[in-house]
Amino acid sequence: MSVFVRERRIRFSDCDPAGIVFYPQYFVMFNGLVEDWVNEGLGLSYHGLVAERRVGLPTVHLDADFKAVSPLGDLVALQLSVEKLGRTSLTLQVQCAGRDHGDVRIAMHQVIVTTSLDTHRAIEIPADLRAAIERFKGSTP
Amino acid sequence: MSVFVRERRIRFSDCDPAGIVFYPQYFVMFNGLVEDWVNEGLGLSYHGLVAERRVGLPTVHLDADFKAVSPLGDLVALQLSVEKLGRTSLTLQVQCAGRDHGDVRIAMHQVIVTTSLDTHRAIEIPADLRAAIERFKGSTP
Amino acid sequence: MSVFVRERRIRFSDCDPAGIVFYPQYFVMFNGLVEDWVNEGLGLSYHGLVAERRVGLPTVHLDADFKAVSPLGDLVALQLSVEKLGRTSLTLQVQCAGRDHGDVRIAMHQVIVTTSLDTHRAIEIPADLRAAIERFKGSTP
Amino acid sequence: MSVFVRERRIRFSDCDPAGIVFYPQYFVMFNGLVEDWVNEGLGLSYHGLVAERRVGLPTVHLDADFKAVSPLGDLVALQLSVEKLGRTSLTLQVQCAGRDHGDVRIAMHQVIVTTSLDTHRAIEIPADLRAAIERFKGSTP
Repeated sequence: MSVFVRERRIRFSDCDPAGIVFYPQYFVMFNGLVEDWVNEGLGLSYHGLVAERRVGLPTVHLDADFKAVSPLGDLVALQLSVEKLGRTSLTLQVQCAGRDHGDVRIAMHQVIVTTSLDTHRAIEIPADLRAAIERFKGSTP
Repeated sequence: MSVFVRERRIRFSDCDPAGIVFYPQYFVMFNGLVEDWVNEGLGLSYHGLVAERRVGLPTVHLDADFKAVSPLGDLVALQLSVEKLGRTSLTLQVQCAGRDHGDVRIAMHQVIVTTSLDTHRAIEIPADLRAAIERFKGSTP
Repeated sequence: MSVFVRERRIRFSDCDPAGIVFYPQYFVMFNGLVEDWVNEGLGLSYHGLVAERRVGLPTVHLDADFKAVSPLGDLVALQLSVEKLGRTSLTLQVQCAGRDHGDVRIAMHQVIVTTSLDTHRAIEIPADLRAAIERFKGSTP
Repeated sequence: MSVFVRERRIRFSDCDPAGIVFYPQYFVMFNGLVEDWVNEGLGLSYHGLVAERRVGLPTVHLDADFKAVSPLGDLVALQLSVEKLGRTSLTLQVQCAGRDHGDVRIAMHQVIVTTSLDTHRAIEIPADLRAAIERFKGSTP
């Protein structure tokens, strides 16, 4: 299975008074990972998709398990793979793991639908996005 | 079942370029709801628990369904109830619903454990917190 | 001088690993204060202004002095007054002070311009907004 | 004058309903720039400084001019230089500029003090940090 990976250091602004990642911040990181994946992993323009073509990518379902904490300064690997590609939806598996130790901090399944940003209703996944995701799934990591 | 409710207006800072709540922001709102519940619903001090007694309340699991969008300026009701009270863990049902229309925007199940903020290991739910949660569960809304 | 005041508890999500407000979070709080002021202090609709009438309220200048820290759980008073009302701009004085001790944590001067959200260019302050600000300035606190 | 530069794409999570950077988010970016500067520009460990040595780097003053907007997807350059190095304080000039067009979006002067995170009081800038800043200032870009 193809995995898109980006490394990132845990920043001061990610952390809470316990000195570890404040959990909603993982979802901000993962949203950025999806952006990077669209731009760099799929070779499309996230900005073009959202701002120009007005295609939304809202999350309709997620379940997440938090297995270990990520302290300030830690170097982590954010990992994304495609579990399922439907007609209007896309299921991703997304993780944050320690880069050095490999231990998983959070593992999430996330269902994204493509919508019109004018109506907020689901639309079919645009053809170029679908083709790029199929290429990504088929590629060897 | 007792439900703790707080109303809140959707702010500019909660919203994304689509003009609706950026989904990680719901988790920030829900974290604030848990704080208000501890302070006002349970009659304890969240700050005392976390900052003085060094008891952490990290989330170990959550699953969430996003059913409708929340636009800028909307008045919503954040709702919390207790599904299960374990020895070291607590399962909450948390929702954001439209205050006027009553439609649910996001519904989440969340498992929180009590930990020592010094070791990040699970500890038994402190006796006063357990007693207050049991009182809350037994009370009529 | 009229002062618009809202109290607020310092939340877990506002704080950094030092257990005090992460400074960019003050600007998020102050943005919310401007929203509340427009809605409740001026009697207009912030959401209507921004989302329907497409009037932007971007900050073009700010200077801020940070005088004391705000710890988790603290109850603070956010305070807003109008220093100057120009043709396309508005200068505010905004503060965060301890509610109990009265000590100022941050004091800021902020210049906001009214813009068209379609062109991002300055426009004259809309007549109803100007009239409401003049009423606010003239009122006794 | 030595300038430390990091490029960054404007993300969905940085932007507000107007589709441009929400201004408090610039300060989050700049906080990350200071972290990168300490780690990579000065060759010290930001995490070690803050989490292990308990040295705080709070901002005590800032003034900022916002000159142009940064839209979603834009590639920007964050730039940091040292204006003044005092006994317990450090004055930085920090900017965000368009990478392609070179136009400045926000220019800020920021005064940071070194503090003890245990007492929140100012301390002398640690010797290794001072030496590294002096080396940085003297180096040619």
